[in-house]
Amino acid sequence: MKKIAVVLAGSGVYDGSELHEAVMTLYFLEANGGEYSCFAPDKNQMHVINHAKGEPADGETRNVMLESARISRGPIQPLSALKAADFDALVIPGGFGVAKNLCTFAVDGPDCSVDPDAERVITEFHSAGKPVAPMCIAPALVARVLGGEGIKVKVTIGTDEGTAAAVNAMGAEHVNCAVDDIVVDAPNKVVSAPAYMLGPGITDIAKGIEKLAKQVIAWC
Amino acid sequence: MKKIAVVLAGSGVYDGSELHEAVMTLYFLEANGGEYSCFAPDKNQMHVINHAKGEPADGETRNVMLESARISRGPIQPLSALKAADFDALVIPGGFGVAKNLCTFAVDGPDCSVDPDAERVITEFHSAGKPVAPMCIAPALVARVLGGEGIKVKVTIGTDEGTAAAVNAMGAEHVNCAVDDIVVDAPNKVVSAPAYMLGPGITDIAKGIEKLAKQVIAWC
Repeated sequence: MKKIAVVLAGSGVYDGSELHEAVMTLYFLEANGGEYSCFAPDKNQMHVINHAKGEPADGETRNVMLESARISRGPIQPLSALKAADFDALVIPGGFGVAKNLCTFAVDGPDCSVDPDAERVITEFHSAGKPVAPMCIAPALVARVLGGEGIKVKVTIGTDEGTAAAVNAMGAEHVNCAVDDIVVDAPNKVVSAPAYMLGPGITDIAKGIEKLAKQVIAWC
Repeated sequence: MKKIAVVLAGSGVYDGSELHEAVMTLYFLEANGGEYSCFAPDKNQMHVINHAKGEPADGETRNVMLESARISRGPIQPLSALKAADFDALVIPGGFGVAKNLCTFAVDGPDCSVDPDAERVITEFHSAGKPVAPMCIAPALVARVLGGEGIKVKVTIGTDEGTAAAVNAMGAEHVNCAVDDIVVDAPNKVVSAPAYMLGPGITDIAKGIEKLAKQVIAWC
């Protein structure tokens, strides 16, 4: 079994990890010979969103790691404890939480700052020649981290022109991609998929996530 | 496309709907020709559980419907609005939320009370000859409702002897079942699967949920 670290950012598309992407990721990793362990930063979320209304739930605070434990059914470790030496690959599902809690891309765009542990683990896995697999908006996070080190990585966030321009502005090379496909940067061992940046449905995003999981395992 | 009503009970295994079961349900329903709509009671959860510690989060309150909207990515309707006439089938994923928010089985066992809308919709779909598909602990809810009406339905919650005895005590007939299989009560159009009552992993529970979804669509 290949050991895969999955980095989560909360539980729910608007303030955390997107649940369909996160769960389908765990499913396709396990189905293809991966054993997953979940990590998330032990800090408060940027905010809490009422998912039925799409509006901030004023006065509520939630912890990113504790909410992420809902996705892992309990077992969760702080992102600070994740070391590339202990795993074969790093996978990052999407959701606004990636752009709110793992970095500030949702607010600051290409000038975003990155959670120090998120930055560290992406750099560690890449430096060790181990696969890094972001999906949905998470490729923007990877673009920010590796682009900041002068590494021009090929990634996709689907076809959204504004987000693609931001990805390029952070030093990556954006490649348009359909929801049922992946973009593979073989020299960097980075594979990305559009997922719900395109959607529209769960069976659509599952196709790209399955390909992403298979590529990750193939590289391990 | 067959129209499937999915009843949720919050978002997270210990106080809501189990996320892997809920998401895999949406996936396999859509993959087999179903179009899902999500419903949940618009009321507070019995309590909130810190999923990393498995302990109650004292002082916190969450609404079952608003949390369930995290699973549906926004679109959600109150369970009070669900009418069997508008759908082809009813599916109920598991998780402790079913036994805490849709009924009180987690606290009261076979003497549990049932949320009035949960009771109404199960009765409505069954009376209309439309499929009812509970998984994990949700067959206990269906046993309580239909058993209370003198309908002896065949269901499974896996192999746990205590829970099976409680299911029988509520007027149903429990049938032991492996995680990758389903129990079909054709005359009542009730199909159930053990899911995480057995587990252990997401690829294990997926097999039974896929069969359940296919049976539901085949009956529609």
